[in-house]
Amino acid sequence: MTARFFLDNSREFLEKKTVSKDLNADVFHHLRDVLRVKTDDVVELVADRKAYLASIQIVTENNIVFSQLKAIVKDPELPIKMTIVVSPLKSDHLEWLLQKATELGVSKIILTDFAYSVVRASKIEKKLPRYQKILKAAAEQSHRLLVPEIMYEKNFLKRVVLTSKQAGIVAWEESSKQGETSKLASTIKAVKIDPAIKELISVFGPEGGISQSEIKELASAAFVPVGLGPRILRAETAPLYLLSSASLLIELS
Amino acid sequence: MTARFFLDNSREFLEKKTVSKDLNADVFHHLRDVLRVKTDDVVELVADRKAYLASIQIVTENNIVFSQLKAIVKDPELPIKMTIVVSPLKSDHLEWLLQKATELGVSKIILTDFAYSVVRASKIEKKLPRYQKILKAAAEQSHRLLVPEIMYEKNFLKRVVLTSKQAGIVAWEESSKQGETSKLASTIKAVKIDPAIKELISVFGPEGGISQSEIKELASAAFVPVGLGPRILRAETAPLYLLSSASLLIELS
Repeated sequence: MTARFFLDNSREFLEKKTVSKDLNADVFHHLRDVLRVKTDDVVELVADRKAYLASIQIVTENNIVFSQLKAIVKDPELPIKMTIVVSPLKSDHLEWLLQKATELGVSKIILTDFAYSVVRASKIEKKLPRYQKILKAAAEQSHRLLVPEIMYEKNFLKRVVLTSKQAGIVAWEESSKQGETSKLASTIKAVKIDPAIKELISVFGPEGGISQSEIKELASAAFVPVGLGPRILRAETAPLYLLSSASLLIELS
Repeated sequence: MTARFFLDNSREFLEKKTVSKDLNADVFHHLRDVLRVKTDDVVELVADRKAYLASIQIVTENNIVFSQLKAIVKDPELPIKMTIVVSPLKSDHLEWLLQKATELGVSKIILTDFAYSVVRASKIEKKLPRYQKILKAAAEQSHRLLVPEIMYEKNFLKRVVLTSKQAGIVAWEESSKQGETSKLASTIKAVKIDPAIKELISVFGPEGGISQSEIKELASAAFVPVGLGPRILRAETAPLYLLSSASLLIELS
């Protein structure tokens, strides 16, 4: 499978068919020193959210020049922006959630503190740059056109207001226990057919679960409480169930 | 959330309302020495694929006796047996696939060698007991009624023959590349409404992908090649997409 990389400076590539040591250091280094590319090798490069098959003409001390760029038409992005709101989790759990959610099409990850959060989001703010790197690597590996963003939003749950372009759901175990089995699919289908909705914001509680008052807050902000099936899913697994379901209903049905 | 445990000796529990150091050593140890349960504490115990809310009457040197057992009617198991066939993967990847697949309802995991397998299944046969432990812990944690089984089947791909009670799919990247977007959902829906089908066997290739001849072999054995969406999923992620999709279409639609 052809390796794919996101360029830092798209303009250099699109205007000069060049990736230089100065303006696209990471990709330059990776192509020249890691992959050791040579003339006629082909790689996939992403510039301004478009992917190109680029065949290499020449590799020099400071530049890699491409002979021709072939735009790749296939769009691997979901038509609806998928935002997940999660509690900070133990570092290894969160890191693989970020990688897997990226493979499954997530657009944005918002970290916030829940009543029952074990790890405090404020504690992991300093790790955001590391998490962003994980997201970029996963986006390249899964051949995405965009790198999901990650941020820490204090008091997201108290402040959130859905716009007319957004829909919201919150994963709620009690909903399953009460036998609710239709809201997840029906909400995703409604979002799919409503051209006004551009983003689905999905909230997932921490290991300790989401509190009654947090559910009330979100419900009053028009977030639909949904069950994710009859089995208990861990905090880092539930978002993958949602993203897989959204992909199935939006992209494969 | 009430802790759930699978009993080794169901009969002792059902006939004597007792968990003894001799016949149910693991659960006895966990309840007495780890959870330090006392009179009137309530735990969930699984005996003969039924779950019971059991309140503790007395804890002695060698026995834990329960005052009453209340059967839990809720069934968290998928109505169709979900078997996944995967290549051995790097140990940590395989171990978390086992945990997540269990949360998502898998019934059986078959490890076999693919043409492009990086890790050889024969190499990890000795790890099967460890993997079985991971599956049991995950089944307890996700409140399943059964523990998924795992086995190594040499030459599964060459030998497999679907019975009239089984349906089969094989995840195939090329299928997505060719724009196929309907076979996964249509196959799961067909399985759901066909009372004759009791098991869905899903095959997933290794990191290096599945070979053309393996796809041919499986297709000639009536396995349906299906795409899992427009993004490249890692070997350990693809089965989670399938299991989530099956849960959504079978349990939540």
